[in-house]
Amino acid sequence: MNEQMLQYGRARSVIRELFEYGNQRAAVVGREKVYDFSLGNPSVAPPPQVNDTIRRLLDETDPCLLHGYTSAPGDPVARGQIAASLRRRFGVDCTADQLYLTAGAAAALSCCLLGLCEPGDEVVVFAPYFPEYQVFIHTAGAVMKLVPPETENFQIDFDALEGLLSPKTRAVIVNSPNNPSGAVYTRATLERLAALLEDRQNRWGHPIYLISDEPYREIAFAGVEVPYLPKLYDNTLVCYSWSKSLSLPGERIGYVYVPGSVEDSEAVYAAVAGAGRALGYVCAPSLLQRVAGACCDMTADLSVYEENAKLLVTELTKMGYRCPVPGGTFYLFPQSLEPDDEAFSNAARELDLLLVPGRGFGCPGHVRIAFCVPTERIERSLPVFAKLAGRYKR
Amino acid sequence: MNEQMLQYGRARSVIRELFEYGNQRAAVVGREKVYDFSLGNPSVAPPPQVNDTIRRLLDETDPCLLHGYTSAPGDPVARGQIAASLRRRFGVDCTADQLYLTAGAAAALSCCLLGLCEPGDEVVVFAPYFPEYQVFIHTAGAVMKLVPPETENFQIDFDALEGLLSPKTRAVIVNSPNNPSGAVYTRATLERLAALLEDRQNRWGHPIYLISDEPYREIAFAGVEVPYLPKLYDNTLVCYSWSKSLSLPGERIGYVYVPGSVEDSEAVYAAVAGAGRALGYVCAPSLLQRVAGACCDMTADLSVYEENAKLLVTELTKMGYRCPVPGGTFYLFPQSLEPDDEAFSNAARELDLLLVPGRGFGCPGHVRIAFCVPTERIERSLPVFAKLAGRYKR
Repeated sequence: MNEQMLQYGRARSVIRELFEYGNQRAAVVGREKVYDFSLGNPSVAPPPQVNDTIRRLLDETDPCLLHGYTSAPGDPVARGQIAASLRRRFGVDCTADQLYLTAGAAAALSCCLLGLCEPGDEVVVFAPYFPEYQVFIHTAGAVMKLVPPETENFQIDFDALEGLLSPKTRAVIVNSPNNPSGAVYTRATLERLAALLEDRQNRWGHPIYLISDEPYREIAFAGVEVPYLPKLYDNTLVCYSWSKSLSLPGERIGYVYVPGSVEDSEAVYAAVAGAGRALGYVCAPSLLQRVAGACCDMTADLSVYEENAKLLVTELTKMGYRCPVPGGTFYLFPQSLEPDDEAFSNAARELDLLLVPGRGFGCPGHVRIAFCVPTERIERSLPVFAKLAGRYKR
Repeated sequence: MNEQMLQYGRARSVIRELFEYGNQRAAVVGREKVYDFSLGNPSVAPPPQVNDTIRRLLDETDPCLLHGYTSAPGDPVARGQIAASLRRRFGVDCTADQLYLTAGAAAALSCCLLGLCEPGDEVVVFAPYFPEYQVFIHTAGAVMKLVPPETENFQIDFDALEGLLSPKTRAVIVNSPNNPSGAVYTRATLERLAALLEDRQNRWGHPIYLISDEPYREIAFAGVEVPYLPKLYDNTLVCYSWSKSLSLPGERIGYVYVPGSVEDSEAVYAAVAGAGRALGYVCAPSLLQRVAGACCDMTADLSVYEENAKLLVTELTKMGYRCPVPGGTFYLFPQSLEPDDEAFSNAARELDLLLVPGRGFGCPGHVRIAFCVPTERIERSLPVFAKLAGRYKR
């Protein structure tokens, strides 16, 4: 068999391992005594319109049509609804035929990377980063270039970025709001990024694509702007998923948006679609395509995430944790209280407090707290966070 | 962008082109005067239990759980139900952890090929064949070796096969019941194939995997046996989809079954799962996983396909067409009445009769008739088939 695939299949995800450890401990000490912040699985229900839409579709639609193949890019009606939503919300001139519906953001990223990259091309990623990027980039035959983290505000270390850009740079992936830091890139950060990439495009005479991976776009807290990248940089491709905004991560529904501003946009779109074909995606799940079309202007009730963020930042800061304030998502990324984040995660685990070490995200010395949990779990966990902090005080 | 992906994205499928032509003609001459046999889209509704199960799941299941991530291989309950069905129906000792749920058979094949093949390996395919095989094999970095068709009975040309097997053969793909020929491989054919592969495995000292792509397994006509390959050859992997049996092609739900008899089966399973990860599949669509688990012992009412097959074979034979009798599927694959199947398809198209040339399936001199249509369309089309035949009589 293929050794690389065997390794991918056997590699235990640290996150999954922590989660399963939590389940085992829950069986021993009781669920309420395990403070599990390992998994980024939305904790709020989808808006009721999701299930209502499914029921309506089952009642009103010819089942052969509803469950049948759509065209590879997706149902034209659903794409039209989504395009209209993007036009209304962001002032872009998106049309249905610029949208390619996918089985979630992972599929969207995979299609963009394989569609854009030739073997040996370089793809720039900013730490901290979602670890599957490396897998998808490798599958596309490209090489990941990792920009070290800017741990003060989790914006971009531009000196490091400049050093990593090269004539072989085909694409740059941006994930804002960010998993795992919770940071949102400011307009200033993104304008500077756009200007830098424009300059390098001109210097090297070929496009550098900015891939905006934005499943957390809708989870931005009060007063935080999430600038729309296609308006700042022409060669932007947007990868979206309703996993977090509608709380549908298992249903695998998202899209690639190839704006008309992208150089040779029709060909780029065709290459993305061709990659979808090559990867074995035939069409995005047909029932959920229609649900996304009907519900794309809604979100689940995301307010609990902001509430949780405030509570955690306030209380952990009091205890001496250094917590960058997240602008969105449902992640907090404090410094570990000892330099070795894995040792710190293990110390937390001894208290049944499950935090993911930052090194897997390319950012050691931090831990990720996934606070997509009921607020009362956070309240119950505070004394444990305090106890943990106590162990590091002399 | 990537030139190969651009080409995949731009390549017009002959089947889709015919289908779209049919829609254009329908607007001009009326839908009832276009005899469209181009697309393999099931024409019978899913069994009512499918939609009933969806409604029940919406009513009874916590929506966060129902629409949430499952583990990558799929929901354990659904996998348990499917494994039990396979044990009951085929007498295998399948367990839940030998099943890896996928987004349809295309995903299943892609995961097997990428999981099993190293770059440069060879994968044997029998003509006539589903054209996407070539794309998936190429994505896995492997090379397709095509065994020419045995056009008498659409079984296997063993002399040709022997000549194409080599120490580089990693896998052999079998699709029975077959798209596009409708043929079902007999037990004798499959036993001979198994014996030959056993011999070559022993000679070359490494496994040759038999990948059984069987989305049409449930569409087999009265008296036709579809032997279960894992019982004939140890190193068999099964790729299944409910697209045809439950009429759910758009929903993308299927599985890979890695039997315990496969050499190093745990590692093979891990490699398949690793390939799923590398291709950007996170899990199969979660709602449909549960539907498949609940409905895996049912099928849509498939009787119309057998009725259509009989009607077409009887009537076309009378007109002088040479029609191998299909053992299953919803395809008939008669000889074209002139050697050039494309010219013949064009002649049929002039009569608004839409038949797919066989050359795209690696079998020129034939055309595919997809008879997954209402029987009355077949009845209306018979005079047109007769008129077409008349043009080739002196």
